Amino acid sequence: MHLYDSTIPSGNAYKVQLLLAHLKISYQTTSLNIVATPSETRTESFLKLNPNGRIPVLVLDDGTPLAESNAILFYLAEETPFLPSDRLARAQVLQWLFFEQYSHEPYLAVWKFQTYWGDISRLAESEVKKLKEKGQAAIDVMERHLEGREWFVSEQFSIADVALYAYTCAAEAVGFSVGENVRAWLARVESVEGHVRIRKDPTGKCPL
Amino acid sequence: MHLYDSTIPSGNAYKVQLLLAHLKISYQTTSLNIVATPSETRTESFLKLNPNGRIPVLVLDDGTPLAESNAILFYLAEETPFLPSDRLARAQVLQWLFFEQYSHEPYLAVWKFQTYWGDISRLAESEVKKLKEKGQAAIDVMERHLEGREWFVSEQFSIADVALYAYTCAAEAVGFSVGENVRAWLARVESVEGHVRIRKDPTGKCPL
Repeated sequence: MHLYDSTIPSGNAYKVQLLLAHLKISYQTTSLNIVATPSETRTESFLKLNPNGRIPVLVLDDGTPLAESNAILFYLAEETPFLPSDRLARAQVLQWLFFEQYSHEPYLAVWKFQTYWGDISRLAESEVKKLKEKGQAAIDVMERHLEGREWFVSEQFSIADVALYAYTCAAEAVGFSVGENVRAWLARVESVEGHVRIRKDPTGKCPL
Repeated sequence: MHLYDSTIPSGNAYKVQLLLAHLKISYQTTSLNIVATPSETRTESFLKLNPNGRIPVLVLDDGTPLAESNAILFYLAEETPFLPSDRLARAQVLQWLFFEQYSHEPYLAVWKFQTYWGDISRLAESEVKKLKEKGQAAIDVMERHLEGREWFVSEQFSIADVALYAYTCAAEAVGFSVGENVRAWLARVESVEGHVRIRKDPTGKCPL
């Protein structure tokens, strides 16, 4: 398999790397410069892999490209312990994967990016307010759901936890408040055998 | 089954209604006022159904609530002709479902909402530009993918088409440009036996 990643650390690519580590699947990587203008993900050759021009893309051994981090997680996790076999539990995993991409990542990931690689002083005040408030609201939804639970779905470590971990692990460092349930869950994810950290930022701008 | 919907037409709820019509599954509906302050989806009783405080929520016959429109589609479509049984094709369906929620709905749905129920004059110029440009980019990605294809995945009508149809069907009416491939695909979706339109806006603000 071949993973298209970015030169600066991407939480969306990290999700895939973390699951591949747990699955002990080896793969090759190509890192694209997504902060270049235009981004290296907008070349004609890359658009053939993902018409939406975004990483990560996982190219399977037969050459088929698969885009969208959480769709890649689902593909890799089918028939493994990282995705429940029960139909309802699978849908509940998807509920959290869609929550992550709609209500969580657009705020936490964007705020993290602006903190380390962007220029917050150039953002409108209303935009800063929106990123902070909606990002915090997403973490608070997680805190509430984790009350009395160890994992997001079915009391087992699944790709719902993998997807939500990727940006939540940086939440406190970029100024969000993280409650006790989320903090304990972050530590739990990190204690699962096979866990790997997001790789270091080669530009040195991000200390995580 | 019981579907929590909104009083004004919601494309995300419509997706579920359209698939339930195709599946010939009967259900009850509760419509909540999402434009009230606070929204009726933020009551303590509704937050027990969806801690993220959003419709649609489908409550299954055993009382289990399921949130996130595209997770609900996946749940309902499993083992039906609306979701391919092949593992890779299922992942490709998910790729388009995540595209819809990340790169499409946040622009097309928000712009449609602002057009009919909001107040565009109160939006910042940069926000209007972002909604229009990113919404158009999403439609253009669809146009490119549909070149030489009838449906989004596996040459069969699936929940990828259902999810993408819900807001794309209103794209031209709210000012986006729709190419020939997308226009032909919209007509194809509408010609599938069992198709139902989004219900009329009781406030009369939206003519669709």
